[in-house]
Amino acid sequence: MSEVARYRVHDLQEFCCAVLQELQVPPLDAKEVSECLVAADLRGVDSHGVVRLPVYVRRIRQGVVNPRPVTRVVHERGNAVLFDGDNGLGPVVGLRAMQKAIALAEISGSGIAGVRRSNHFGIAAFYVHKAIHQGFIGFAASNAPPHMAPFGGRARFLGTNPIAVGIPAGGEPPLLFDASTSVVARGKIIVAAQEGKPIPSDWAIDTDGNPTTDANAALAGSVLPFGGAKGSAISFILDILCGVLTGSGFALNLHRLEDLGVEQNLGHFFAAVRTDLFISGKDFAARMDEILHMLKSSPAGAGTSQVLAPGELERQNEARNQVLGIPLLQSIVDQLAELGESLGLAFPKAADTMGLAETQP
Amino acid sequence: MSEVARYRVHDLQEFCCAVLQELQVPPLDAKEVSECLVAADLRGVDSHGVVRLPVYVRRIRQGVVNPRPVTRVVHERGNAVLFDGDNGLGPVVGLRAMQKAIALAEISGSGIAGVRRSNHFGIAAFYVHKAIHQGFIGFAASNAPPHMAPFGGRARFLGTNPIAVGIPAGGEPPLLFDASTSVVARGKIIVAAQEGKPIPSDWAIDTDGNPTTDANAALAGSVLPFGGAKGSAISFILDILCGVLTGSGFALNLHRLEDLGVEQNLGHFFAAVRTDLFISGKDFAARMDEILHMLKSSPAGAGTSQVLAPGELERQNEARNQVLGIPLLQSIVDQLAELGESLGLAFPKAADTMGLAETQP
Repeated sequence: MSEVARYRVHDLQEFCCAVLQELQVPPLDAKEVSECLVAADLRGVDSHGVVRLPVYVRRIRQGVVNPRPVTRVVHERGNAVLFDGDNGLGPVVGLRAMQKAIALAEISGSGIAGVRRSNHFGIAAFYVHKAIHQGFIGFAASNAPPHMAPFGGRARFLGTNPIAVGIPAGGEPPLLFDASTSVVARGKIIVAAQEGKPIPSDWAIDTDGNPTTDANAALAGSVLPFGGAKGSAISFILDILCGVLTGSGFALNLHRLEDLGVEQNLGHFFAAVRTDLFISGKDFAARMDEILHMLKSSPAGAGTSQVLAPGELERQNEARNQVLGIPLLQSIVDQLAELGESLGLAFPKAADTMGLAETQP
Repeated sequence: MSEVARYRVHDLQEFCCAVLQELQVPPLDAKEVSECLVAADLRGVDSHGVVRLPVYVRRIRQGVVNPRPVTRVVHERGNAVLFDGDNGLGPVVGLRAMQKAIALAEISGSGIAGVRRSNHFGIAAFYVHKAIHQGFIGFAASNAPPHMAPFGGRARFLGTNPIAVGIPAGGEPPLLFDASTSVVARGKIIVAAQEGKPIPSDWAIDTDGNPTTDANAALAGSVLPFGGAKGSAISFILDILCGVLTGSGFALNLHRLEDLGVEQNLGHFFAAVRTDLFISGKDFAARMDEILHMLKSSPAGAGTSQVLAPGELERQNEARNQVLGIPLLQSIVDQLAELGESLGLAFPKAADTMGLAETQP
């Protein structure tokens, strides 16, 4: 890992923000998108971090993403609202929708916000983190373009449709679950292909539908849903909530980030729930602490030292990266520096050159 | 399968109903519970069917289940209500809660009903079927006593917490997903133990936390969550929704059906959503038909003839069993007949002795 250097969180956010503003993204929108990207790197989810900035920029330059969307509520019913993303960057409408769901929950106990005509929204954890921070249970999901075979199938049909759930506790850290509905993120297979390494046979199938350990064959084929028929069904249901229910695109109608000639037309689904929906907020916090404590006290299995709560590993990454800076591969830095150069913007210096503590992962 | 005979749906419902009424369960409650049990057998989910009647009866006789509960709403907030099950049979309060969630959704677009102080509620599909039947999207979940190790653990902590989602379509049959959050239902391991057969090594671990192919060692140990860390997190989150949020029992505080000295104290979580929450109901139905048709048209994988929609297999079982009668093992029939005898009730005759068409499975 000698080609890794660490960069300050603030520096990366500033850089992304400046790049997006050069592309005519309004300052506040640029700030939100930048925070969403860097939040992924902070949590160690590199596949959804600043590495995505170049493709976001390419899509704006190609005119298939609107840099200045007029996001608006197009439908209201009870404690539910539907947003039209006006084909803007996903985090822009995503964050507004999550905030609206929280505001509705504040008043009504729970709130729902659907989104249509949106784009890649980064990590789902970004949105439920906002809910947790304000003391609410949060739920965020998106559909995604087809890269995954359904259970019993051999061709791409489903997205790796992500889902995140955040639940505040009392003294214990909150629960923050965020996962794709594939066995593994496609990003891991891309890395294996780059390194020329084989992959486990249960991650993906080739274009003929056969299990493969060849990362390139897997990338040409389809990733597999987590948990067999059950995970496949959950992914399908998320596509229905995000795409079918909202009037957005779904399944085979969705387009990849790399398809530079066409809008993605993704849909999202957000919900927030008050922790005192049924019992007092104080009781809820105490009971959350109790169940989390029970989980952490559960005897560990072979090869593990402790049972981890959902999101605990990512929280550890975040704490470390917040202090030491975010580790980026030189190849990623080169791409970002080149992008900056094309806009007359300098990529920030690595944190270790500024005297910050540094340990290689 | 020579020890299997088929029984008419109506006959089994009548028998269960008569047994429960003998135990002082009011007629309407007895009818609902009977329908719930037989609905499982109809769908081919034998583990949750009439085979459970004897333990329901034992629990009433032991005084740990209340045959005449006064179920009531103990809290209301916006479009959400909390029911107290008064320690009655799960389907009694479960059905009322689902109906209330549907009624709230009718008015508000969506509705939530939590339940505390309940018992085993049968198959989750029973409840979302009610939602589908009335044209609503339905969601049902329950927590369950600890039989499952969390991801990274080696001891029982989670229940096999079931979740069901039902979504109406237009011309296509509705989607009805119902699953435990374990790799397989514990019932399958019980059957393997009875038949002296080995089980796959990824189903369960022994009491030391090691993977095992010995069904008896698995039953003494813990089943494993579906989909590794992701399924484990989903199961944990369901326990929080059903148990922590509602003020009911959760995780290690829950008691097994077989623990005849103590209340189970289970919690449930139901929700309903209008299909026209964001777009017209007609559009939603057409879009559901489209995504279901897309799924069914997706190329089938090796060894399968067609990609199945979630719940399609169970719907096929139901159609067959509705016509031919429900197949029951002689050993189950003997138990039920003995139970009936103790109450002066005759178990019904097999359907094939009454001239109904019969083909052995």
